[in-house]
Amino acid sequence: MSGSTGTGSDDGADRFADDPAFAVHEGGKLSVTPTRSIDSIADLALTYTPGVARVSSAIAAEPELARRFTWAPRVVAVVSDGTAVLGLGNIGPVASLPVMEGKACLFKEFGGLDAVPIVLDTTDVDTIVETVAAIAPSFGGINLEDISAPRCFEIEERLRERLSIPVMHDDQHGTAIVVLAALRNAAKVVGRPISDLRVVVSGAGAAGVACTKILLEAGVGDIAVADSQGILHSGREGLTQIKQWLVDSTNEAGYAGTIVGALEGADVYLGLSGGTVPESAIASMAADGIVFSLANPTPEVDPDMAAKYAAVVATGRSDLPNQINNVLAFPGIFRGAIDAGATSITEEMKQAAAAAIADVVGDDVRADYVVPSPLDRRVAEAVAAAVGECARREGVTG
Amino acid sequence: MSGSTGTGSDDGADRFADDPAFAVHEGGKLSVTPTRSIDSIADLALTYTPGVARVSSAIAAEPELARRFTWAPRVVAVVSDGTAVLGLGNIGPVASLPVMEGKACLFKEFGGLDAVPIVLDTTDVDTIVETVAAIAPSFGGINLEDISAPRCFEIEERLRERLSIPVMHDDQHGTAIVVLAALRNAAKVVGRPISDLRVVVSGAGAAGVACTKILLEAGVGDIAVADSQGILHSGREGLTQIKQWLVDSTNEAGYAGTIVGALEGADVYLGLSGGTVPESAIASMAADGIVFSLANPTPEVDPDMAAKYAAVVATGRSDLPNQINNVLAFPGIFRGAIDAGATSITEEMKQAAAAAIADVVGDDVRADYVVPSPLDRRVAEAVAAAVGECARREGVTG
Repeated sequence: MSGSTGTGSDDGADRFADDPAFAVHEGGKLSVTPTRSIDSIADLALTYTPGVARVSSAIAAEPELARRFTWAPRVVAVVSDGTAVLGLGNIGPVASLPVMEGKACLFKEFGGLDAVPIVLDTTDVDTIVETVAAIAPSFGGINLEDISAPRCFEIEERLRERLSIPVMHDDQHGTAIVVLAALRNAAKVVGRPISDLRVVVSGAGAAGVACTKILLEAGVGDIAVADSQGILHSGREGLTQIKQWLVDSTNEAGYAGTIVGALEGADVYLGLSGGTVPESAIASMAADGIVFSLANPTPEVDPDMAAKYAAVVATGRSDLPNQINNVLAFPGIFRGAIDAGATSITEEMKQAAAAAIADVVGDDVRADYVVPSPLDRRVAEAVAAAVGECARREGVTG
Repeated sequence: MSGSTGTGSDDGADRFADDPAFAVHEGGKLSVTPTRSIDSIADLALTYTPGVARVSSAIAAEPELARRFTWAPRVVAVVSDGTAVLGLGNIGPVASLPVMEGKACLFKEFGGLDAVPIVLDTTDVDTIVETVAAIAPSFGGINLEDISAPRCFEIEERLRERLSIPVMHDDQHGTAIVVLAALRNAAKVVGRPISDLRVVVSGAGAAGVACTKILLEAGVGDIAVADSQGILHSGREGLTQIKQWLVDSTNEAGYAGTIVGALEGADVYLGLSGGTVPESAIASMAADGIVFSLANPTPEVDPDMAAKYAAVVATGRSDLPNQINNVLAFPGIFRGAIDAGATSITEEMKQAAAAAIADVVGDDVRADYVVPSPLDRRVAEAVAAAVGECARREGVTG
């Protein structure tokens, strides 16, 4: 099975030997296995023909039996077109596969769900929607991943309308849910209600839009959002539909210009853009500030510098405290929604997930512990329970 | 995870308890598992961010590295629209899932390949082709399954043209390959070259067309093919494109009317239709006749009755000798093609697979042993080797 691509080096040495990430990826990171072995003709006759025909006939007569006798209801498709992969940008479907395989590993490890990478040889919105809709009966949930803005908004919205299984674009909502959880606990640390906080968001892509939405819904006081052209305000022209929505929904204080002006006296900086912020701007924030600088591997604001001025600092980095990592959200959200038979993932379910993540920290909350460790196995369980309860309360179960 | 569909019975008893096929299907038959565990932040940082970014970047720069560092090249999509499932007909995608899961189990058990069921919420030829083409970068091969004729012919042909990975409709070619293997050995038993044999095929669907093609290519003398209206001959009108091809390519003897007339003096009856054949017709076949009656679970010709007249009898049934079972073909074919980096499955590869299956029986051949047992682990290995060698000889490797 291996060897056909060789070691890629003329002298026989493997040029990937020095980086353990490549060793972990050798041969891929996933395996599909039968849940029962086939050791006899009798096994074969139950797993496959003729026995399987009786199960298929039963499901044809009562489609709801598929929930009990097929694997599909517990399988999540991790779908990407490879257009916005991590910080790498548009690297295409094949190069995005290791990320989707990794996501599938995390679904199993933390959520106990089977997940399958589906990478797409198209970036056309209509084709993506039609393709995912066509394969949907194979799955119990659709995790959209690393699809560039603004296409990701339309794709998610149309699939949510069309399908009666949970659909979630994780780069939007996974990030937003964990950010809200972290902000709830950071606000506790500084002893303020989140409704009092003035937030500046750097980045109006998938994560920036979703974070802004969930923070507004959670009751955050005022939010100013900046894209690469500066703060979004009513004087900006030629905006996409979603950026116009941001203009209409944010920035009550009426900031214009660059992010620097908005940061003066602000309580929270939320970096989702990968740009840089001058030290003077961080220094100009209000006392007891909160800095979440999530660009990875290089945060927009150096965390050591931020710590000089802010009360709470969080990043996306695994080697620092307060790692904002989507793995705290998506396994439990899909697990809870799927177990409850939810037909969609609602705003209330996202709020419930954020509260559940924050609550795992509970009374242990402190400046360097506003979110649980990504390895904390209690999190997915707590999130799944909260999301499931919410689904039943809202009556979105099928 | 279980229990939400209940036991389906008011008195609490499980109405599926008496049939072990349902127990085997409880919760589905497949599981996706990570190949390496995630027990530490370091594991997480290699399987997912930031380590995965280095692997994705390397593949973006050199796409052929995907063959080494992703799972996709060794994953087969088992694709169905649920329109021609076993003998059950058009039962739809969800009810077809147990069959596709079973197929995926067999891919792993016998071919060592990962396989994923993809069932489609569409029966439109264009949509199926576009959907499979869109998801193709996720996979190393496409096994089309249980798609009704004549749509299956166009779908397979268009996907073969469009994709540079192996695509095979198993109901056509898997069956045809095993039938050819069995016929080669049955001809040995009766001591005749297959070029001497006159064959009557009952059924002009997916399997009937493919069996006729592969037998003609293998050099079988003359073949008459019957559909539900009788023997296909030049006087028939309003035929589909594929049936017109059969008219142009078969029936040199010019039979018309029902299958009964063509069977008189014929050497081989190949039943793929699920109809019935009167005993007198089987009795009218030539001496040392061969009867392959593959409808399952009820063969077109009762095998005990056939044995009164024919020298070799084969069926699709697991409880009788000479079981014609596709599992003898598809795992080894895809494994051989994928390992060789083949960009398609050619006619020569199918012929090589049939010869390899027949050769596993070898000198042990006798009337009740013309094909190996479906559990014979030597078969997939032999088929994979033969198909791989053929791919390299033909130069269809990527």
